Amino acid sequence: MANQVMPNLLLKRAFLTPDRPAIQFKNETYSFKEVYEKSYQIAGQLIHLGLTKGDYAGVLLSNHAETAFIYLAFQLLDIKAVILNNRLTAEEIAWQLTDSKAVVLITETAFACKYEEIYKALPELTVTSKEELFSADFIEPIITEEINLDDVCTVMYTSGTTGHPKGVLQTYGNHWWSAVGSALNLGLSEKDCWLCVVPMFHISGYSILIRSIVYGMRMVIQDTFNEKEIIKAIQNEKVTIMSVVSTMLIRIEAELGDNKLPEEFRCMLLGGGPASKTLLENCMVKGIPVFQTYGMTETASQIVTLSPEYSLSKLGSAGKPLFPSQLKIMDPNGEEARGKTAGEIIVKGPNVTIGYLNREEESSEKIVNGWFSTGDIGYLDEDGFLYVLDRRSDLIISGGENVYPAEVEGVLTSHPDIVDAGVIGVEDENWGEVPIAFLTTKTEIDKDKISTFCLQKLAKYKVPKQLYIIDQIPRNAAKKILRRELRQYLKELKRQDCN
Amino acid sequence: MANQVMPNLLLKRAFLTPDRPAIQFKNETYSFKEVYEKSYQIAGQLIHLGLTKGDYAGVLLSNHAETAFIYLAFQLLDIKAVILNNRLTAEEIAWQLTDSKAVVLITETAFACKYEEIYKALPELTVTSKEELFSADFIEPIITEEINLDDVCTVMYTSGTTGHPKGVLQTYGNHWWSAVGSALNLGLSEKDCWLCVVPMFHISGYSILIRSIVYGMRMVIQDTFNEKEIIKAIQNEKVTIMSVVSTMLIRIEAELGDNKLPEEFRCMLLGGGPASKTLLENCMVKGIPVFQTYGMTETASQIVTLSPEYSLSKLGSAGKPLFPSQLKIMDPNGEEARGKTAGEIIVKGPNVTIGYLNREEESSEKIVNGWFSTGDIGYLDEDGFLYVLDRRSDLIISGGENVYPAEVEGVLTSHPDIVDAGVIGVEDENWGEVPIAFLTTKTEIDKDKISTFCLQKLAKYKVPKQLYIIDQIPRNAAKKILRRELRQYLKELKRQDCN
Repeated sequence: MANQVMPNLLLKRAFLTPDRPAIQFKNETYSFKEVYEKSYQIAGQLIHLGLTKGDYAGVLLSNHAETAFIYLAFQLLDIKAVILNNRLTAEEIAWQLTDSKAVVLITETAFACKYEEIYKALPELTVTSKEELFSADFIEPIITEEINLDDVCTVMYTSGTTGHPKGVLQTYGNHWWSAVGSALNLGLSEKDCWLCVVPMFHISGYSILIRSIVYGMRMVIQDTFNEKEIIKAIQNEKVTIMSVVSTMLIRIEAELGDNKLPEEFRCMLLGGGPASKTLLENCMVKGIPVFQTYGMTETASQIVTLSPEYSLSKLGSAGKPLFPSQLKIMDPNGEEARGKTAGEIIVKGPNVTIGYLNREEESSEKIVNGWFSTGDIGYLDEDGFLYVLDRRSDLIISGGENVYPAEVEGVLTSHPDIVDAGVIGVEDENWGEVPIAFLTTKTEIDKDKISTFCLQKLAKYKVPKQLYIIDQIPRNAAKKILRRELRQYLKELKRQDCN
Repeated sequence: MANQVMPNLLLKRAFLTPDRPAIQFKNETYSFKEVYEKSYQIAGQLIHLGLTKGDYAGVLLSNHAETAFIYLAFQLLDIKAVILNNRLTAEEIAWQLTDSKAVVLITETAFACKYEEIYKALPELTVTSKEELFSADFIEPIITEEINLDDVCTVMYTSGTTGHPKGVLQTYGNHWWSAVGSALNLGLSEKDCWLCVVPMFHISGYSILIRSIVYGMRMVIQDTFNEKEIIKAIQNEKVTIMSVVSTMLIRIEAELGDNKLPEEFRCMLLGGGPASKTLLENCMVKGIPVFQTYGMTETASQIVTLSPEYSLSKLGSAGKPLFPSQLKIMDPNGEEARGKTAGEIIVKGPNVTIGYLNREEESSEKIVNGWFSTGDIGYLDEDGFLYVLDRRSDLIISGGENVYPAEVEGVLTSHPDIVDAGVIGVEDENWGEVPIAFLTTKTEIDKDKISTFCLQKLAKYKVPKQLYIIDQIPRNAAKKILRRELRQYLKELKRQDCN
């Protein structure tokens, strides 16, 4: 049992390297000692709110140094943070707060409209803005000096493919091992500094905070994504690593023009879904050190990442599972797929969730003998590198052939006139299903020419049978395409046609 | 429980980065793939010897690439390696083999005299040289693909106060966490290469092998210590880190003269006992980046190491406990010592042994609620940095090897002419310390014969360099030897010599 116990992460880090710079936000830099002092102060104010060890409490915040302090204050008290996506509607948030039995909601005045509505829906909930919290009385807190790696640290909701969102339980151990697995892959230098412009309410951002504490590494927090500002920050703040999703990388790559990122910048960690080969190739030409990665809320961020030495030779692959983790591809019969056969990706490791909050049945369906079924489709090449093809629910089967929307979208967005693309399957008398595409474009386009373009790059059965130009491809906060909404658009279009 | 499981270390590393250079010995370099292939081959030959998962087997080898392959073959099969100090006598080794119930001994022809004697003492033991093993038949082995961090990986014997050595159980988790704790402190670069000239049968050397596998890092093995060769190796092989004990560092520092080590050499990890302030200051002047560290067999190497940023300001300190570990100083009343009060050092963490093989009582005396009593004395300064004052009051450290007076006294008093014996350490220019003995005897004795007697039963470094006959060994009421008084005798003897 002793193996499960560890010093409280922030307490230990502040003790080990108190004077190192830890968190940078706008013009302020906080050392680990200062981060500890801030978090300790907030812990005392949370106690005053009536929170105690083991409680679940909601956090609805935007990217800010204070968000880090609040998250860490929760850890100091061993209060479980139900971390809420601030892009959700009040109704969606209220649903998650109810589901998680959160006793308090910590938020900020910027979300006043939202949290007033939440309060109306849940009048028994204590709702406090951070501004109120920071001026509240302080009660000397009892700090949890040792954490148990098996204990829940955070809860983040994911929608999955069907039904209501589920609260993913992330233990201290999940976060710890994720940070360690990443360091063993990417290395760890005194000079490292990780730029966090991905949301801190997502595992992509929260995991940067954990790495900062575990590694003793500086992190720079940004609250909005602007490619110009990002490039400036990388240069001025001596950023060495950054987490991005495709859409961000596309804009950074375009903005860079003929310029290069500084040599010290050593890793552009690209997650949150598939990336087009064109983008990866463009980055390669410009010397942007892209590391493709695959992960999800349930794996406490990355679980598969491409090692530095394979970033060129295995372009397009997400890499191999991090040291402590394992991966298999399962065929539809539940057997391990061999060769390059595509199938469901299942994963195992100490960074994999122990299950969903208050959902034992779903948890035991998704996690069998430690193996978590991701629902995603991929294959392993002859050297064991993972290529992620798509989310299983999105798979289009046309005339017995598999069509993976991401692949089609990759081709479409490689066309110079196309900005973004979303592909779904629609019923078809002849083929069962056929793919169709929604596009956002730079200029007016000739649909026939696009089809010809696709036919040059894709087997005929993969080419979209219809192209619809729309204003924006609907994506969630993690930049994943909301295909349900695309289906909804289609219904409306057809209804209009009938009239 | 899933948290305890990990991929087999070598299997995973060979999968992740097969082509990286892994182990270098003399003119040969083996990639991780080759290390795996060699170890796999040996695993199949060990099976042929009749070894099976869970067995304990002795290993008596010198520093060599093949030693690494054999250690790793053991891990592939999950056979527990009883790792024997090759400086011990046949009698000492036979004792450890019996105590650990080892079923096989793997050794090398260089130790033929020794192992023939062992075989005489233990005729039922299967004794095989590596040379025989490597030409043995091969049976396709079943590799342990997953290890359990709680399972025993290695056993290394250390003596205590009471005479007989005890087998320290080192789990896979102990080794893993030790490697991770070290990386979080020292950082981890693709360019790293760790020079191993400390014995691979000690935790100092074995832990370098583990780090090589866990980090995907090159290690250079040397079989003998020669300061000229070491400096050459650092330069030619682009070594960045090296583990040393004081006696080695003194010789390297002297040999360097006005020269400097290459800039890429970033860490001289100094363990295995106290270092003089003069040595540390000399190294500082020459730009040798010394990192003092404190650790022992029971902590699977380092548990306290000085962080880079404090190597100057806290010169002489062993540093702070590595991230996953904890440390306290206890006063004689069993209370935690405060201020700069000296007391016994106790430690806790996932790298700390689970106990001694087949010695439940002694284990539960030494480890209480996860806290291991080291027996060493130290204090913490106002910033929490550890200063080790004394290794267990009576422990003698000679050239990095531990000499336990009780063990030497046990051998001396087993001689028919000796009534009582007391052993202490005295300063020595070459070895730091050497043991000397005070004796009370039945008759007049021939000192040379006593030395020969000792050499049959004790490793050479344990044999007293001087024997003094006195009337009575000073003991307290509890019959404990008063070593202070022996030191006093010695001073007086020397004073008489001068007159």
